[in-house]
Amino acid sequence: MDMPDILLEIEREVRPHFGRGKVASYIPGLKRVPPDKFGMVVRMVDGGEYGVGQFTEPFSIQSISKLPMLMLAMSMMGEEIWRFVGKEPSGSAFNSLVQLEYEKGVPRNPFVNAGALVVLDAVMANTQGKASQVMLDYLRVLSQNFAIDYDRKVAASELRTGHRNAAIANLLRAHGRIRQAPDTLLEAYCLQCSLEMSCLDLARALLPLANSGVSPLLEEAVLTDRQTRRINALMMTCGMYDSVGSFAFRVGLPAKSGVGGGIVAVVPRHCCLVVWSPELDRSGNSLVGTAALELFARMTKLSIL
Amino acid sequence: MDMPDILLEIEREVRPHFGRGKVASYIPGLKRVPPDKFGMVVRMVDGGEYGVGQFTEPFSIQSISKLPMLMLAMSMMGEEIWRFVGKEPSGSAFNSLVQLEYEKGVPRNPFVNAGALVVLDAVMANTQGKASQVMLDYLRVLSQNFAIDYDRKVAASELRTGHRNAAIANLLRAHGRIRQAPDTLLEAYCLQCSLEMSCLDLARALLPLANSGVSPLLEEAVLTDRQTRRINALMMTCGMYDSVGSFAFRVGLPAKSGVGGGIVAVVPRHCCLVVWSPELDRSGNSLVGTAALELFARMTKLSIL
Amino acid sequence: MDMPDILLEIEREVRPHFGRGKVASYIPGLKRVPPDKFGMVVRMVDGGEYGVGQFTEPFSIQSISKLPMLMLAMSMMGEEIWRFVGKEPSGSAFNSLVQLEYEKGVPRNPFVNAGALVVLDAVMANTQGKASQVMLDYLRVLSQNFAIDYDRKVAASELRTGHRNAAIANLLRAHGRIRQAPDTLLEAYCLQCSLEMSCLDLARALLPLANSGVSPLLEEAVLTDRQTRRINALMMTCGMYDSVGSFAFRVGLPAKSGVGGGIVAVVPRHCCLVVWSPELDRSGNSLVGTAALELFARMTKLSIL
Amino acid sequence: MDMPDILLEIEREVRPHFGRGKVASYIPGLKRVPPDKFGMVVRMVDGGEYGVGQFTEPFSIQSISKLPMLMLAMSMMGEEIWRFVGKEPSGSAFNSLVQLEYEKGVPRNPFVNAGALVVLDAVMANTQGKASQVMLDYLRVLSQNFAIDYDRKVAASELRTGHRNAAIANLLRAHGRIRQAPDTLLEAYCLQCSLEMSCLDLARALLPLANSGVSPLLEEAVLTDRQTRRINALMMTCGMYDSVGSFAFRVGLPAKSGVGGGIVAVVPRHCCLVVWSPELDRSGNSLVGTAALELFARMTKLSIL
Repeated sequence: MDMPDILLEIEREVRPHFGRGKVASYIPGLKRVPPDKFGMVVRMVDGGEYGVGQFTEPFSIQSISKLPMLMLAMSMMGEEIWRFVGKEPSGSAFNSLVQLEYEKGVPRNPFVNAGALVVLDAVMANTQGKASQVMLDYLRVLSQNFAIDYDRKVAASELRTGHRNAAIANLLRAHGRIRQAPDTLLEAYCLQCSLEMSCLDLARALLPLANSGVSPLLEEAVLTDRQTRRINALMMTCGMYDSVGSFAFRVGLPAKSGVGGGIVAVVPRHCCLVVWSPELDRSGNSLVGTAALELFARMTKLSIL
Repeated sequence: MDMPDILLEIEREVRPHFGRGKVASYIPGLKRVPPDKFGMVVRMVDGGEYGVGQFTEPFSIQSISKLPMLMLAMSMMGEEIWRFVGKEPSGSAFNSLVQLEYEKGVPRNPFVNAGALVVLDAVMANTQGKASQVMLDYLRVLSQNFAIDYDRKVAASELRTGHRNAAIANLLRAHGRIRQAPDTLLEAYCLQCSLEMSCLDLARALLPLANSGVSPLLEEAVLTDRQTRRINALMMTCGMYDSVGSFAFRVGLPAKSGVGGGIVAVVPRHCCLVVWSPELDRSGNSLVGTAALELFARMTKLSIL
Repeated sequence: MDMPDILLEIEREVRPHFGRGKVASYIPGLKRVPPDKFGMVVRMVDGGEYGVGQFTEPFSIQSISKLPMLMLAMSMMGEEIWRFVGKEPSGSAFNSLVQLEYEKGVPRNPFVNAGALVVLDAVMANTQGKASQVMLDYLRVLSQNFAIDYDRKVAASELRTGHRNAAIANLLRAHGRIRQAPDTLLEAYCLQCSLEMSCLDLARALLPLANSGVSPLLEEAVLTDRQTRRINALMMTCGMYDSVGSFAFRVGLPAKSGVGGGIVAVVPRHCCLVVWSPELDRSGNSLVGTAALELFARMTKLSIL
Repeated sequence: MDMPDILLEIEREVRPHFGRGKVASYIPGLKRVPPDKFGMVVRMVDGGEYGVGQFTEPFSIQSISKLPMLMLAMSMMGEEIWRFVGKEPSGSAFNSLVQLEYEKGVPRNPFVNAGALVVLDAVMANTQGKASQVMLDYLRVLSQNFAIDYDRKVAASELRTGHRNAAIANLLRAHGRIRQAPDTLLEAYCLQCSLEMSCLDLARALLPLANSGVSPLLEEAVLTDRQTRRINALMMTCGMYDSVGSFAFRVGLPAKSGVGGGIVAVVPRHCCLVVWSPELDRSGNSLVGTAALELFARMTKLSIL
């Protein structure tokens, strides 16, 4: 089967999964999204680009934004960033304060919320507080779509209800791990998470992760090969909340998910995959999206495990 | 020896302890207090009142304010208050988030910061947000000193630096345990802690705790006998941060301390003791104050153990 | 009312509480005990001795044995014992491994199982391993009842099923906190707990705790006044498993309970109280026994709070 | 460069790393091993077999034994085994009791000690207690080396000093998660860990993990493709103690290490790699071995990330 047929077949086979998950309810702004959306894009390193379903429709990328912000931090600071955040799986709920408290405010990895806050704080410190604009510009250029933007309503609704993130930011500050005031940092964090991009936008923008750090669109390296490997290793071991081991088994690819229902997966030296479907499983990953990626891995034998 | 001689003897004997502790530094507004202050008052249930040192000089009562706020909450809500906060010792640092997280946001007791925030939130809900004014009026009447007041500079400095309390308030809110917005609650909490009272003011105001709930000055019950016993039991088992067991051994009285250097102790059916000296031991209790109370217990044989 | 009438009244008033608790089931040897037993003794410092119900019937003292073993350790080692075990409440279940792990194998106090194991280990090291015989002799002399003995069947049944204690002992050993092999220590510990004594035996033997360390029967000090105060402080703040605060409120006396249904309480400088009734509340303390002590405190006004 | 040259080059390049790590000292029997040993084998799925250094010298495989025991458990019980043990990274030290206690005795994954004990217990229950003999036979057949055997002296020394494992086994039993008596299970576990195999033995025996479950030597499937993927996913996310993320970055292959200094890594559908060198890094993984695998991944571009 060639790629377009594979995608059509996946779209058909995932259909029975609709209705088995739940759209994220804790962010008011996300509740309005129709649950039965599905989009998927495969972007090959060597240029091929294949999409199915609502693959050009923008959605809230949420925690997927931790990826480009980490890419920015690594470009700006190199290995310095690891003085602020660890590189190992956390073993507890993605937003737990317990581990953070016991480990004196050093987050386990950049993909738990505490770690993402620390990464954002570092980028803010390196950009005179303009991290949100810098990330937006970065992703506009990388995706070659200058229309992508934050959804300030979603950001505001998340800021209003994000008490656990506020607890984390304040605890980080109490341990002296962030330089911004917690309120400033939280506002920027909610904005970061509210970015709206389509599967296609994400696949183009994050393709460097499948290509040793080089963007084929820009013909330019945005990360070194070593940095790219580091991010892929982090995705493989920490990218899927509490389902890292289960996702590695089912899909076998480095990936990062968001509660908006998006998942970005990388086949190193081959392609970048993005899938979107809003219903989440109990770990907070897109239920239909994971099923789609599992089918893809099985049909293409591109799982790395 | 009669009481005035006992107090003079104590004042003499504690002198060598000065310089062994440290004035609280994490609240900027407290750092300016001269470390060698010492005041002590014994207020008998039957009317006698004895003081030594700077016993009429107002100081920042800080966590001692958890006592009158709890008294208010119990008067207003009765047993209802225990739906929001526990009654057992915490066994971990007074501000730890770990226990709070594991116990789903229900604080262990009203004297850990989380518990005090929950008590304050309850009083705010019962007073249309006017808890600070209500507590001030309550203590002015009970102490018969209408000049006592909050120190808004100390409150502001604590609010600016109290990131750990902010983490706690946000975690409480994330668990749905408080009704006020965290920022509103924290502002009221810092104000509550900033109250300035002298040893004499406190001894008069809290004398009901030694008298089955009845204020001898007002000839009026502010608590029932049962409520009074509850508070004394909480002071005995949870009132002295991480030194509850050690304080019970050395002094053997229900007591509550504050990082401003004050300690209130109760000899049930007998007297209320208040001591103030700003240098703290490693647990955050007044070092000289504890020594003074230990001497008092030894000289008067009033320890209940 | 005089003391015999008070005890008869208590016996009458506690009757409706039978059937509300549960006999400890995790120690097979204890399950056979009829649940409706009730005995109570008041032993005055100045000689009076009053009993009601089955107050001369031996029962399994279980964790009450932590008291005499601690008394022995303090007599033998003085302050040295506190190098091995803390003096503060634990705030978590009496057998939790979590706190022990985080605090590097130093138990919080001598009344959690880990602490009792460390105390026993110390006594074993000071008696060439003969701690069980030494404690038996000690209590025979103190109670003036030379017929009291261990119940080796109960000990054996507890040893067989005490996996959590075995985990604790091994963790203590892994941290280098005990000198005996875990198996040797556990065997001695289960034997210690299996001691059978009546309310009367216990009241006589532990009366020194109400009398500044002096046994009125022997006219001899077994502890210093200071050591006695230390033990009373530990009972007050750590003696009743997870109900320390609640028991302080209801009864207001230093006390130690055991899952056999016994409770020893102390009115300093006045009397020693022992009550026995096998049904336990949710914290593992005798339900009827606690009710009896509460009635006693209310009728005699001997609560220290 | 062809494979023999690559291995010779690796052997040369790792030399400066000797002396930077430490041989495991907590197992007395391992301390005698000379620290400067080095052996490495690459066993291709399609038959090629390349070795360098002491690649035929048997060493103590220790935690690598968790792999074949898990393979046995999966063959015997299929998906049933996951009722007893999780599949996600633990995020805390490989032997921590804290997580086990909070998660009610269900170990996070089969590669933490608690998980390995549960897997062994399951195999013992399925083999009338003959798990040790069954695993030995299994590995003799798979490696085609019938001389491999346990080192009972190492097993005995580990049993004597393994108090933390004893704590874990007893805690598992207290939660009802194992059926064997803790002592029986611990004895079998220490025996399991004491197995002596060479790099070559291990590479041949574990080659099915690189070949969809089929042993090329036996021309027989020992696992299904699905089971093989599960084990590789577990190795990728949980196989290297606290260095899973770091190892994924440096080497990018599913792997399992042991404190004897061995590491098994898998290039799916390609080859099985085994390296041995006794000095360990701070996470307990072979320091020189990890360096060798990193060089291998770089020179061959076989990293999957």
